[in-house]
Amino acid sequence: MAQNQLPDFKTNLSEWFNEVVLKAELADYAPVKGCMVIRPYGYALWENIQKFMDVLIKKHDVENAYFPLFIPMSYFEKEKEHVEGFAPELAVVTVGGGKELVDKLAVRPTSEMMMYEMYKKWFGSWRDLPVRMNQWCNVVRWEKRTYLFLRTSEFLWQEGHCAHLTHEESMQEVMWAIKMYEQTYNELMGVYGIIGAKSDSEKFAGGFKSYTFEALMPNGKSLQACTSHDLGQNFSKSIDWTVQDQIGEKSMPWQNSWGFSTRSIGGLIMSHGDEKGLVIPPNIAPIQIVIVPIPGHTTALEKSKELLKNLESYRIKLDDKEGETAGVKFNKWELKGIPLRIEIGDRDVASGTVIISRRDTSEKITVPIADISTTVDALLKDIQQKLFDKHKKFTQDHTFKADTYDEFKKIMETSRGFISAHWCENADCEAQIKTDTKATTRCLPLDAPEENGKCVRCGKPSSHRWLFGLSY
Amino acid sequence: MAQNQLPDFKTNLSEWFNEVVLKAELADYAPVKGCMVIRPYGYALWENIQKFMDVLIKKHDVENAYFPLFIPMSYFEKEKEHVEGFAPELAVVTVGGGKELVDKLAVRPTSEMMMYEMYKKWFGSWRDLPVRMNQWCNVVRWEKRTYLFLRTSEFLWQEGHCAHLTHEESMQEVMWAIKMYEQTYNELMGVYGIIGAKSDSEKFAGGFKSYTFEALMPNGKSLQACTSHDLGQNFSKSIDWTVQDQIGEKSMPWQNSWGFSTRSIGGLIMSHGDEKGLVIPPNIAPIQIVIVPIPGHTTALEKSKELLKNLESYRIKLDDKEGETAGVKFNKWELKGIPLRIEIGDRDVASGTVIISRRDTSEKITVPIADISTTVDALLKDIQQKLFDKHKKFTQDHTFKADTYDEFKKIMETSRGFISAHWCENADCEAQIKTDTKATTRCLPLDAPEENGKCVRCGKPSSHRWLFGLSY
Repeated sequence: MAQNQLPDFKTNLSEWFNEVVLKAELADYAPVKGCMVIRPYGYALWENIQKFMDVLIKKHDVENAYFPLFIPMSYFEKEKEHVEGFAPELAVVTVGGGKELVDKLAVRPTSEMMMYEMYKKWFGSWRDLPVRMNQWCNVVRWEKRTYLFLRTSEFLWQEGHCAHLTHEESMQEVMWAIKMYEQTYNELMGVYGIIGAKSDSEKFAGGFKSYTFEALMPNGKSLQACTSHDLGQNFSKSIDWTVQDQIGEKSMPWQNSWGFSTRSIGGLIMSHGDEKGLVIPPNIAPIQIVIVPIPGHTTALEKSKELLKNLESYRIKLDDKEGETAGVKFNKWELKGIPLRIEIGDRDVASGTVIISRRDTSEKITVPIADISTTVDALLKDIQQKLFDKHKKFTQDHTFKADTYDEFKKIMETSRGFISAHWCENADCEAQIKTDTKATTRCLPLDAPEENGKCVRCGKPSSHRWLFGLSY
Repeated sequence: MAQNQLPDFKTNLSEWFNEVVLKAELADYAPVKGCMVIRPYGYALWENIQKFMDVLIKKHDVENAYFPLFIPMSYFEKEKEHVEGFAPELAVVTVGGGKELVDKLAVRPTSEMMMYEMYKKWFGSWRDLPVRMNQWCNVVRWEKRTYLFLRTSEFLWQEGHCAHLTHEESMQEVMWAIKMYEQTYNELMGVYGIIGAKSDSEKFAGGFKSYTFEALMPNGKSLQACTSHDLGQNFSKSIDWTVQDQIGEKSMPWQNSWGFSTRSIGGLIMSHGDEKGLVIPPNIAPIQIVIVPIPGHTTALEKSKELLKNLESYRIKLDDKEGETAGVKFNKWELKGIPLRIEIGDRDVASGTVIISRRDTSEKITVPIADISTTVDALLKDIQQKLFDKHKKFTQDHTFKADTYDEFKKIMETSRGFISAHWCENADCEAQIKTDTKATTRCLPLDAPEENGKCVRCGKPSSHRWLFGLSY
């Protein structure tokens, strides 16, 4: 086991995380501060996310497009809150083609200002709405320290940007997007989470209201795993975009934007990992099954090649690399989190069976070769479901109600997790809670029932419980 | 026809090109100098290229990955020719997170230096070779003027970067890549071209030998439509990358890189277009068939919806937009180059037929509704083949042999196209030919037969005919 030696998953998640990302060859530090290289195994996860999500996006009549990497600094200045929010994180190009630029260019941290200026140019009538566009691209938000996947200066994402004639239609889109993200997390990535509204202090700079999918990590910290923003008419106003409505009047479009990034891969890794390394859910796994013939067993190698062909509808790999023992191979694929490993030796061939090993439970099952296809199918489905169930149960087990400030503080000191508590929605109270306990508002869950209560800190009336927690 | 009014295709290709790109909503000028916005219809072409090519790339065991956008300036300086070639085109980030950077960062114009430094870190043994990676990304090479698709400061591309133990293996990869590009141009895009080696003055900065696919445009100019570079050991040397070979000695990997960009879409547009607008080959067409029921014809509309369902295995669209005449609709889809248009009125429904109109030949065919699926299938295949054949014939008809410098000059003055001529391979001669005639060496075709001849300019002996032409 020595080669996989990882920091302890339970007591030292962040070091475990860094090590597993490097050792499983998901990513590496780049020579540029704050940046990372996404290696093929990590990029394959992103490709599987893209494939899954792009279908959902297109089915919803959102069209893919591509807008420039560079945004004139003057564009940002049109939306006051937006520029204040993003200015500290910008990378700025000041030299182009050997010359000092008069108009400095920001490397896009997000594309609202660029896209909406183009929308204004292209779309002037209610007949042109709704506008629904999306781009898959890179963005840059300056960071001094790199947390692989979770916080990097450059990251990959999709950003959807829509415009509607009414606020109601725009809100339907905002909700569609966050639920589409939830579906991706749940069904593809096996990650459970809570959808809700962000508080005003945590919302998108320049937006009106933000919605989030918050996922609880094994160390009790909450990951804001993607967001969907109701932008109201804020951006339309700042660039003075109107369209002619059905009765010939000028009308300002209502806008929304929504983004899902490579940060999600950080959430995936932590949600399912264990002391042996990654555990990748079958639906997103770049390799779902690895076949390991015992080195030196020649009939096993031949049989393995046959199995590889029979199971080619799965994402499957045969590890016939020379110069490694079976143990080394097992460790390698466990570290990489391959859902199923098929072990096969000459004796197995003789008895017409193989051993299938589950990555999630470490269970080993002897399976007749004739049954392998149906068994594999059932196992992959079971692993996918169990991983989701386990993460959901973990989240529920680590969600605590607090009705007094003492209870709130005690939970933060002892058990960590989500705290469900009443809050008066006053920003001063929110700031004080953060100072006292480090906990921030994560969201007002969409399904939070109405309930008369008192703010856990100041005692003023509150109608809903918010979720609090430590943020990533 | 007034709405489509385009500059004359035959006499004014470059204005025709700009107008058709804008009017067909393929792309638009961005507010940033030299940059463009790729609109959904244009981006869908790029997506179809990606889909086609990504399969070929993966089948060849090349893995996708993602390397950072920013490259430290100090990296470029390690390869002298490389930095000299790219320095004048760099966009440079000098401010990050509100602070002046000590290490300035280039926005990648290409990723050799970044990727190979990582390769050096990761791969130290012959067992790690060959390395085969590819990334789909954006790159920036500063331009003052925008030619939509053909020359923009930012463009999208894929860049493949491989490393091998021997020059022979690396050369196999170089040839595989350029032939994979040829396949994409021929089969997907219906574009014919010539594969060949670039002259030393036209090769990739820092490379050893470059191979190109040159496609002849209707105005007789040649488009360097993609390239594959044999980098020799130049980059390995500049970063001092060695691997331990089979006998324990240090060995410098042989490298190659190959790229295909959104520039290709410019070639696609020009190769097939005509006075009515775009003509998109069916295999790459985002919309292969448009159904236009005659406005106001209610049974035709119903029948159209039925046809839409029957033909759903094609990329098909029903144009039931209100407020437009049939003529306006026809023009709109002709401008966009949709390969087949199905026209249907109430009378057609009554007689059980529809009219199918081919975009490439303007031919109209009356087809019984019962036969529509087989007819459509045959027509799409025929259009794809005819467009390729036509472009191939055009190229062959505009390839001229010149055996004297007078002939050479005369061809350049009168008919334009490829000139097949002997050249001594001396750079001074090449430069003089360019000064005298504007023609540059395009390539030494791979299949150029050995032939004793004399340099068209200086008369020195030459063993092969090179292709010359005006470059885009």
